[in-house]
Amino acid sequence: MSAPAFPHPHLLGIEGLSATDINSILDEAEPWIDFNRGKRKADGRLAGLTQINAFFENSTRTLFSFEIAGKRLGAQVSSFHPAASSVRKGESLIDTAQTLNAMRPDLIVIRHEANGAAAEVAAHVDCPVINAGDGQGEHPTQALLDALTIRRRFGRIEGLKVAICGDIRHSRVAGSNIRALPLLGAELRLVGPRALLPAALPEGVAAFTDFDEGIAGADVVMMLRIQRERLEAGLDDALGDYHARYGLTRARLAGAAPHAIVMHPGPMNRGVEIDGDLADDPARSAVLEQVEYGVAVRMACLDLLTRARR
Amino acid sequence: MSAPAFPHPHLLGIEGLSATDINSILDEAEPWIDFNRGKRKADGRLAGLTQINAFFENSTRTLFSFEIAGKRLGAQVSSFHPAASSVRKGESLIDTAQTLNAMRPDLIVIRHEANGAAAEVAAHVDCPVINAGDGQGEHPTQALLDALTIRRRFGRIEGLKVAICGDIRHSRVAGSNIRALPLLGAELRLVGPRALLPAALPEGVAAFTDFDEGIAGADVVMMLRIQRERLEAGLDDALGDYHARYGLTRARLAGAAPHAIVMHPGPMNRGVEIDGDLADDPARSAVLEQVEYGVAVRMACLDLLTRARR
Amino acid sequence: MSAPAFPHPHLLGIEGLSATDINSILDEAEPWIDFNRGKRKADGRLAGLTQINAFFENSTRTLFSFEIAGKRLGAQVSSFHPAASSVRKGESLIDTAQTLNAMRPDLIVIRHEANGAAAEVAAHVDCPVINAGDGQGEHPTQALLDALTIRRRFGRIEGLKVAICGDIRHSRVAGSNIRALPLLGAELRLVGPRALLPAALPEGVAAFTDFDEGIAGADVVMMLRIQRERLEAGLDDALGDYHARYGLTRARLAGAAPHAIVMHPGPMNRGVEIDGDLADDPARSAVLEQVEYGVAVRMACLDLLTRARR
Repeated sequence: MSAPAFPHPHLLGIEGLSATDINSILDEAEPWIDFNRGKRKADGRLAGLTQINAFFENSTRTLFSFEIAGKRLGAQVSSFHPAASSVRKGESLIDTAQTLNAMRPDLIVIRHEANGAAAEVAAHVDCPVINAGDGQGEHPTQALLDALTIRRRFGRIEGLKVAICGDIRHSRVAGSNIRALPLLGAELRLVGPRALLPAALPEGVAAFTDFDEGIAGADVVMMLRIQRERLEAGLDDALGDYHARYGLTRARLAGAAPHAIVMHPGPMNRGVEIDGDLADDPARSAVLEQVEYGVAVRMACLDLLTRARR
Repeated sequence: MSAPAFPHPHLLGIEGLSATDINSILDEAEPWIDFNRGKRKADGRLAGLTQINAFFENSTRTLFSFEIAGKRLGAQVSSFHPAASSVRKGESLIDTAQTLNAMRPDLIVIRHEANGAAAEVAAHVDCPVINAGDGQGEHPTQALLDALTIRRRFGRIEGLKVAICGDIRHSRVAGSNIRALPLLGAELRLVGPRALLPAALPEGVAAFTDFDEGIAGADVVMMLRIQRERLEAGLDDALGDYHARYGLTRARLAGAAPHAIVMHPGPMNRGVEIDGDLADDPARSAVLEQVEYGVAVRMACLDLLTRARR
Repeated sequence: MSAPAFPHPHLLGIEGLSATDINSILDEAEPWIDFNRGKRKADGRLAGLTQINAFFENSTRTLFSFEIAGKRLGAQVSSFHPAASSVRKGESLIDTAQTLNAMRPDLIVIRHEANGAAAEVAAHVDCPVINAGDGQGEHPTQALLDALTIRRRFGRIEGLKVAICGDIRHSRVAGSNIRALPLLGAELRLVGPRALLPAALPEGVAAFTDFDEGIAGADVVMMLRIQRERLEAGLDDALGDYHARYGLTRARLAGAAPHAIVMHPGPMNRGVEIDGDLADDPARSAVLEQVEYGVAVRMACLDLLTRARR
């Protein structure tokens, strides 16, 4: 391979990446989008490499995306789901990491409920690790696919107004986007009930408890999935109240920029944080592009991180 | 490929297929039987294609059959099981379908507890969909493998007397066979307790509540798996009574044609709907042929449905 | 292939194998260790063969090891986990075996909670069967990987003193090692509470209820995972007492041979049967080598057992 290796051994978060790093991943992802739309989706560059998807939390969407990405590149992919897992019977995360490592994988993709789990695994293995979500920490490939979605819709990210709405505080999707979007030059706003906003705001990022005020003039309205447990813990409202105060409708979206797009990491709670007709409007909703570009972004990451090993 | 593409974009049911359609699938399946008995079972015709097995109900037998079929044709197969699935957290079936579709699969095999689920998915995706069982609707590949089993045992289906016995009303296996077998020229009888027979009978199909009367002279006795829940809801009998009235024994089978064969979609409740010694008699029982031909039939379906894409 | 086929159709246990058989597996496993450490881990010798991993008990560690082993040899691997399995709805093990067999696999790896399950499956299928653990019976690939680990650490097994410590009676790992190690010339000692020692001792094997006495001068101290349920059933002690009486610490290991190594099949209960600092000492602990060599041993077994079919 003549292309340069990615300058980081792992992808643990957006934290620590430069704008150049991020843009190089997005650039690498672009051609995979067309590749995935083609008739035969087989590339042998990861042939003979073992990819382990160690998912300690249920996730079909992200697990499938990584599984399909790896297989399209020719990797030997083995996935485990928490339901089928005995790795953890009283075993520490480090022991699990070392055990997986001893099987000589070439890449480990990990999702785990503990903050910092991916970094802890990375410190104890000999191969690249991709964080597919750690507790309330980061979910970097989600932020990368979000960035790619925005870049493809608008031709740029720089200068765009992006509002992230919902339970910011507990969301690792927000965690990664809060790091990525300002780095790429977006003007970022966080919108949600006070109890669900971060305790401290990054420099240059504005917070709003009023939804309409928060999305006023926004180019991108990124809705987060609301979790009932959080709602009950962090708010006095019932679910209906949440929709009234923080649910995105077509009428409300009129307050954003005329060309504003709507994003959501899925799965959507239609009628709660987002109205169904908006989600289904291809001019407005970029939700399915997010899923599609997700596979491409993950192919780029798998490729970049294993280049040095090939 | 010079062979013609299958004239239907999906395989959602036997409903809508012609006898010619069915026979062409059976003809295509035949050579795969020998292929699967051979030393090396690898054919590259689906190489570079992504097959998703989206199983929302537990099923090892059918899932394995589709998984093995796809892999033998060289497809990249990803399967999900309900236990490991978060796709559904409040997500609609259409959203799930669109999400899977955005990953650009070339084929989706779906099992779901709702009637019409496969058709609903097919309406929202860009690739062929195979119904692997939808609620109490259809399970077309089961009827196809049943037809192939009968055809290989008797050399024909036309003119044979086939009795389907058990819980006809709630069975999607029966649902598909009731459509397929008369189309192929069989004389069909449905046998079971009144509460478990269909409310309306298709033309030319006879119903019997008396088991011995129903199977009298039959060439094929197709037993269905009885589910305890149904039994309790639909009958006053206990399980033992069910066996006494509707369980197949060697003595009872004597009332069928002298050369009659016994079929069962599995898994069998030995001693309930079928006696173990009958199930184990290779002259009588075609149960294992059904499983074997199932893989071949599914290979034929995967091949036929993806021809237009290759 | 010019290499001779393995003289046994299945690998159901160490029982029935000769020292020559075992050594030939270990010899075959050696080169796979380097292979697995290499950049590209793809060998096509099992291409076109179907490997079914039928795991009726949860096990990520062993299942992954067999899955990775098969994929590195090019096999088409399909695995099922108990959580996702409906094979068993009232179905007998023989019916399950025959059903899987009808799909024409080339190899079945089975883990099951019943003693003798693998042998029962082997009696009803046409392909090689590997026992990946049957009840309290055997777990032969574990004993093989243990033997390989010892052989690589000491250059031999003959004449070494090996102490197996813990719940010997209920452990299939012990069950296989008790057969393998004496056959290979080791001097074997079994150490544990009386209730957890075997009722009858094989000839030449000594038993100890005193831990320090049992491991005195041992070259290898093989700790077993202690299961809380057993502990409560078989002992008056609490978990803390168990550690005090039978937990391995660095201080206690001083009573073994100066160069003694520590082994554990995993997952470890740190602070119960083994101290964490010992487990993490690469000079003492061979735990990760066991995992690593496990993949190599399984590759050798998959290869040897399928040679006659290729």
